[in-house]
Amino acid sequence: MSHRLGIIGYGGMATWHHKNSGRVEGLTCTAAYDISPERLKVARESGLDTYSTLDSFLENGDFDIVLVATPNNFHKELAVAAMNSGRHVVCEKPVAMSSAELQEMMDAAEKNRVIFTVHQNRRWDKDFLIVKKAIEDGLIGKPYTIESRVHGARGVIHGWRAYKVAGGGMILDWGVHLLDQIMFMIRERVVNVFARLHSIKTPEVDDYFKVILTFESGINAQVEVGTFCLKSLPRWYVNGDQGSIYINGWNADGGIIRTRDSVMEWQEEIVQTAAGPTRTMAPR
Amino acid sequence: MSHRLGIIGYGGMATWHHKNSGRVEGLTCTAAYDISPERLKVARESGLDTYSTLDSFLENGDFDIVLVATPNNFHKELAVAAMNSGRHVVCEKPVAMSSAELQEMMDAAEKNRVIFTVHQNRRWDKDFLIVKKAIEDGLIGKPYTIESRVHGARGVIHGWRAYKVAGGGMILDWGVHLLDQIMFMIRERVVNVFARLHSIKTPEVDDYFKVILTFESGINAQVEVGTFCLKSLPRWYVNGDQGSIYINGWNADGGIIRTRDSVMEWQEEIVQTAAGPTRTMAPR
Repeated sequence: MSHRLGIIGYGGMATWHHKNSGRVEGLTCTAAYDISPERLKVARESGLDTYSTLDSFLENGDFDIVLVATPNNFHKELAVAAMNSGRHVVCEKPVAMSSAELQEMMDAAEKNRVIFTVHQNRRWDKDFLIVKKAIEDGLIGKPYTIESRVHGARGVIHGWRAYKVAGGGMILDWGVHLLDQIMFMIRERVVNVFARLHSIKTPEVDDYFKVILTFESGINAQVEVGTFCLKSLPRWYVNGDQGSIYINGWNADGGIIRTRDSVMEWQEEIVQTAAGPTRTMAPR
Repeated sequence: MSHRLGIIGYGGMATWHHKNSGRVEGLTCTAAYDISPERLKVARESGLDTYSTLDSFLENGDFDIVLVATPNNFHKELAVAAMNSGRHVVCEKPVAMSSAELQEMMDAAEKNRVIFTVHQNRRWDKDFLIVKKAIEDGLIGKPYTIESRVHGARGVIHGWRAYKVAGGGMILDWGVHLLDQIMFMIRERVVNVFARLHSIKTPEVDDYFKVILTFESGINAQVEVGTFCLKSLPRWYVNGDQGSIYINGWNADGGIIRTRDSVMEWQEEIVQTAAGPTRTMAPR
């Protein structure tokens, strides 16, 4: 089977997709539409047919799939137009500015009988796949808490991510990836959602959020992102009834800890630590 | 001013209090009541008048303050009896098995015009005092998240802590301390409580809990205790709009991190890490 890809918005992500499209058998990248003459020049020099208006791109372009890689607030309009022209659509994330917009996009796909999907690249991240496989293989028994966390950036936020009009904020930037990973890993119904958002350095959008999804079987999965959390806690921390998994950071280094010590016993001795006296949680 | 202390329940905590009572000016420990002849022998050898019934202890004992240091399920009955005999009462934590029991105790204090209080020893823990002072001194600006966490014990639970009848479980053992520390530190009204409890190794009671208190000004304070979380995360982690505080563990070692880097800028470059491509959160 052979497919041809046309790209709307030839920016950073589009360039990356164009470069990688050569690795997909039967896929050829043929055309690009952008409002920026500079970006169209780059696209032309990369061997693509280029278009400076949406209409000419959709009317004359030689492709059956469209990639929408513009800022988020243009996804809906462009994806719907592409689907109405009979093309399948792959859209960058966050897919839309609201669930109402997403519904319009799904309706357009159904009406035009085309495929509509979202580029969720983080389903292939090494750290995520390690955690997913360890859970699926039962290495820590039944999980009861899953924590997925990204701290860092020292308060630095780039471009559209700081602005509401462009669909910025961490819940739309990182949140859609990390929550997607959790939903992709735990195939159960979510029965409760807890969420807290803060705007510490970016007045318009959230630069910190914590979301806890409670699943049907009782698993509590937490996703936390903070661009102004200056001490990074581990990327992943999962506790199950037979052990714990942790992955520290970007190098995907970590481990699995299990123990055979679990007992209930009586012990009178209180351990004195700098943090006060303790019995149950004394360092052992 | 001079006070005399009578102890009900001469176990581990009572011994510890008796030993330390000598350091309090004007306080003398005079008497003990216990149902165990062995414990009464220890008390007698430590120089106390001993009683094997509650009635004789309250009728004949020479004290104006009573310390209740029995298992939790006897606190209410004994504290009320002591207050009805006209004595002030200090009770070990968790103070009662339910808020209804606590109300009975408070009513008895009011009726008898005596002082009733709970021994919250962890208000003097070094780690807690460091965090409290750093926040009060404004070292990290306005806090937005506070995390107080105790992991450890490898699933080992001692004595009464594993049993429901005795008021066991981590929310009653550690929770009352850690939540008390938070409430003592942030003098605001709590507007929301999120709580999740799990029973992983102790079927009758919780051996894992996470509670998030949302305060009036928007601060979210999380307390988490897990006896079967095999990788310990930091004891304290506090994020404010000017920096972060962390304290690692029982040695109360940690630090404060601040930065002057906080900017909003446009940057096209995507950083490739083992955990996938990233821009906002790339390691810098």
